[in-house]
Amino acid sequence: METKARVLIDCNDAKGLVYKISKVFFEKDLNIDSNREFVDKESGRFFMRSVVTGIFEPDELLNELKAITPEDADIKVIVPKPKKIILMATKESHALGDILIRHADGELDAEIECVIGNHNTLEELVRRFDIPFFCIAADGMNREEHEEKVMELINKFEFDFIVLAKYMRILTPKFVNAYEEKIINIHHSFLPAFIGANPYKQAHERGVKIIGATAHFVTDDLDEGPIIAQDVIPVNHRMGWREMQRAGRDVEKVVLSRALSYVLNDRVFVHGNKTIVF
Amino acid sequence: METKARVLIDCNDAKGLVYKISKVFFEKDLNIDSNREFVDKESGRFFMRSVVTGIFEPDELLNELKAITPEDADIKVIVPKPKKIILMATKESHALGDILIRHADGELDAEIECVIGNHNTLEELVRRFDIPFFCIAADGMNREEHEEKVMELINKFEFDFIVLAKYMRILTPKFVNAYEEKIINIHHSFLPAFIGANPYKQAHERGVKIIGATAHFVTDDLDEGPIIAQDVIPVNHRMGWREMQRAGRDVEKVVLSRALSYVLNDRVFVHGNKTIVF
Amino acid sequence: METKARVLIDCNDAKGLVYKISKVFFEKDLNIDSNREFVDKESGRFFMRSVVTGIFEPDELLNELKAITPEDADIKVIVPKPKKIILMATKESHALGDILIRHADGELDAEIECVIGNHNTLEELVRRFDIPFFCIAADGMNREEHEEKVMELINKFEFDFIVLAKYMRILTPKFVNAYEEKIINIHHSFLPAFIGANPYKQAHERGVKIIGATAHFVTDDLDEGPIIAQDVIPVNHRMGWREMQRAGRDVEKVVLSRALSYVLNDRVFVHGNKTIVF
Amino acid sequence: METKARVLIDCNDAKGLVYKISKVFFEKDLNIDSNREFVDKESGRFFMRSVVTGIFEPDELLNELKAITPEDADIKVIVPKPKKIILMATKESHALGDILIRHADGELDAEIECVIGNHNTLEELVRRFDIPFFCIAADGMNREEHEEKVMELINKFEFDFIVLAKYMRILTPKFVNAYEEKIINIHHSFLPAFIGANPYKQAHERGVKIIGATAHFVTDDLDEGPIIAQDVIPVNHRMGWREMQRAGRDVEKVVLSRALSYVLNDRVFVHGNKTIVF
Repeated sequence: METKARVLIDCNDAKGLVYKISKVFFEKDLNIDSNREFVDKESGRFFMRSVVTGIFEPDELLNELKAITPEDADIKVIVPKPKKIILMATKESHALGDILIRHADGELDAEIECVIGNHNTLEELVRRFDIPFFCIAADGMNREEHEEKVMELINKFEFDFIVLAKYMRILTPKFVNAYEEKIINIHHSFLPAFIGANPYKQAHERGVKIIGATAHFVTDDLDEGPIIAQDVIPVNHRMGWREMQRAGRDVEKVVLSRALSYVLNDRVFVHGNKTIVF
Repeated sequence: METKARVLIDCNDAKGLVYKISKVFFEKDLNIDSNREFVDKESGRFFMRSVVTGIFEPDELLNELKAITPEDADIKVIVPKPKKIILMATKESHALGDILIRHADGELDAEIECVIGNHNTLEELVRRFDIPFFCIAADGMNREEHEEKVMELINKFEFDFIVLAKYMRILTPKFVNAYEEKIINIHHSFLPAFIGANPYKQAHERGVKIIGATAHFVTDDLDEGPIIAQDVIPVNHRMGWREMQRAGRDVEKVVLSRALSYVLNDRVFVHGNKTIVF
Repeated sequence: METKARVLIDCNDAKGLVYKISKVFFEKDLNIDSNREFVDKESGRFFMRSVVTGIFEPDELLNELKAITPEDADIKVIVPKPKKIILMATKESHALGDILIRHADGELDAEIECVIGNHNTLEELVRRFDIPFFCIAADGMNREEHEEKVMELINKFEFDFIVLAKYMRILTPKFVNAYEEKIINIHHSFLPAFIGANPYKQAHERGVKIIGATAHFVTDDLDEGPIIAQDVIPVNHRMGWREMQRAGRDVEKVVLSRALSYVLNDRVFVHGNKTIVF
Repeated sequence: METKARVLIDCNDAKGLVYKISKVFFEKDLNIDSNREFVDKESGRFFMRSVVTGIFEPDELLNELKAITPEDADIKVIVPKPKKIILMATKESHALGDILIRHADGELDAEIECVIGNHNTLEELVRRFDIPFFCIAADGMNREEHEEKVMELINKFEFDFIVLAKYMRILTPKFVNAYEEKIINIHHSFLPAFIGANPYKQAHERGVKIIGATAHFVTDDLDEGPIIAQDVIPVNHRMGWREMQRAGRDVEKVVLSRALSYVLNDRVFVHGNKTIVF
């Protein structure tokens, strides 16, 4: 029976890589459905994403590719299946709701394991979709204690990604490092403009004519992780910061869902502080 | 004979302002071609721009409007005529060239008094349009000495606005304060992201997915003046910073020309660090 | 106690209208929160939307405004309260789901009376939000018979607007005329390009580089009613029509919700085949 | 000495194409600077653009590639050098001027052979750039006679592309077929909306909220050739059609220059009525 796989290769650039890789595909009689490569000249790094179909063992393909690529190569042969995600949110429903609707619609190639809130504001909404909701309130706890409880819960699940759908608490390095390249956040500004608290208020005070949103992987540096997707909308002098916020929500949810769709389809490579999105 | 005038009113808000102002227009039998108002609630400031036609003396209209508005009111009755502008540039021709072409085409309601460069790179281009070009090189001078020579030249002209069409030198407070609300700059980033030198390199290093440009009035605070217009374009991982720069030029020139068209048509109010653009 | 009202005036232009209207506001001691006017020169039609607050009887205000405006004037004094809407949909959930989420979030100033489907595909989703769902299948009926049943149901409700959230049946003139200026549709193309069936397939075949969506009032002329809002996104050669469709859904839902928010806030005037959106 | 070449391959899809092509590159010891492929599933057509550097004879490379690709393959090995272009225009200067400025700036990898106008309105502008201008007025001639004179002139030049920078005459099939896939036009609407005369007037009458421009290859079907680039800007009810036209010019010139840059860099494949733009 035919197998379909996404092949992701991330290694130092070397002459003949495309040749050697496509030779493996050819000799295994695979069809290439799509193929994208990129070489980052500055760092001399090679990235490739191919979708192949044919009769083959994914592990064998992986081993053959390892044999002909540089030793440092990070290679994945992924047979597509729904990824498991955990959602985290606070009080605002627009980003979370958009993911729930898309999920209910079958549009997301993902299974939502649960939603974790630090308030119970969103419980009703989540329950409407028959998805487990856990509230871990932070009252009376310091940041470390709260996060420990959250991590305890998270670690009960198998998952591919944690999606922060407007989770309004700052995460500690401990948390972030525990789930490297697995946490996706939506920041409510066009990063790197307006880092930090209440970006819409900052944007309003600065008198900008455009506002935006940024979906990014979360790293140690607050609001500084690799950017996956961004978008913007025009604003004007008639809008107070709350109106900017309202308008911005449409961008936030679209950008987060776009970024989520990229990672669920294995289209994103992280390269230092940047992403390659095929 | 009919006169057409743009009436600009900027004053503290008070009940009945629209009534009192429109009463003046009505009693003078003026037609209102267009009318826009805005009240900034935070500061309690009222802004209005009306275009009126009729048989009237602009000075009389001004006086009648002063009589019925708060004492602090800043009122202008402008009979449209081409504004005089001085262009300043360094080596890049895209922003300057776009203004020259629009001017040659009669699209700008402006007379270009001259172009001042700190290099002579652009002299040939400017001369093609029969516009005076002055090169004031900064070699062997400190910032103050250079600026003094530039100001000496500028002050020989009557002008309404100085347009920095990619003039790549930092201006001193002395210069900026001498021409308050008269200097328009194009900054090659989506401010307030990437303030300072080589924004495209900064943008590339940060791995953003969108770049932009910002036209603003120049104030003491470098890259912090009131924003007049902004726009953006998408970029991707395949683009090095030079390619971002090339792509960004199209946004820069369009944004600068848009901002210029706003100020030439008296559509911009400066309010603290922001603008109202009608 | 203070009353807030939206005053909408649509009448033939005449000298002194702004003066006379603002005089009424002034003499009733009303505050003007916002004020927008527009005169369509071609047709000589005047449009004004003011938000006023003060101590007044809406009916009295209406009468006083009628007394000083041309006879043909269409004037509304609206004390804001949630509008009642009926949603209609077929099988796709993105546009409907977006409205449901916004409604659940309290973002829409509206009460959803019910959702009417011509299939029961969306029943489960709608029930999650505790909103009545009625399926009126068209099986075995001609268009007129089916519509009659739909109208019977609709007419049991009081409502301000019918929102077609991807309702994929063509409406007869009888239906459309029964609810003039009350039916809002989202068309899945950048009208007037790709009128009719499967616009994404048409767009793909034509090889366009941008696709869009259009929210409009429904009139007799299929896909020809007054446009309320439009937006677009870039596409490329790699996308088949189904991928364009998927990408287009994000635009459709945002555009429909934007248009809906305009009409719920009484910001839209219909003027012949166009809209004025303040 | 190192040679750099752009390799363009357009052929029926077959298993192993990437392997065979990259094998040729590898065995000739070429570096691949960039590499993009696309297979159109519907038509089963394969497109590839590679930029390679190394020590090689372009003709030899071409022959080796021909030997391993299907017989129908259309293969080009292009050593980059400035392409020769002929510009045609009527009275409006914005699109032409933008190309002239970019050319003067060295931004376009092109030599402008001449500008041909059917009026002499633009002569002065063109002469400023020391570029030959020929006016072939159509007065007293029928379409065929006029075109014959234009073709006579064109055929005196060697050229790669004819760029219609707002040339407002309809071309006959004879003309179009004589220069297949060599004529690039900018149409002042978001095609396929508003085909034909005065699209801005059409757009204004239809009350659209967005207008656009389309750069395309010219074919027999008026305004129906393969689209190379498109872009849009928002408009509103306050704009008459002349203001839409003015605003649209900024889009027209940017879109035409973008399309021109694509073809000058050999980034465009024509495939039936569509383009693949790498």
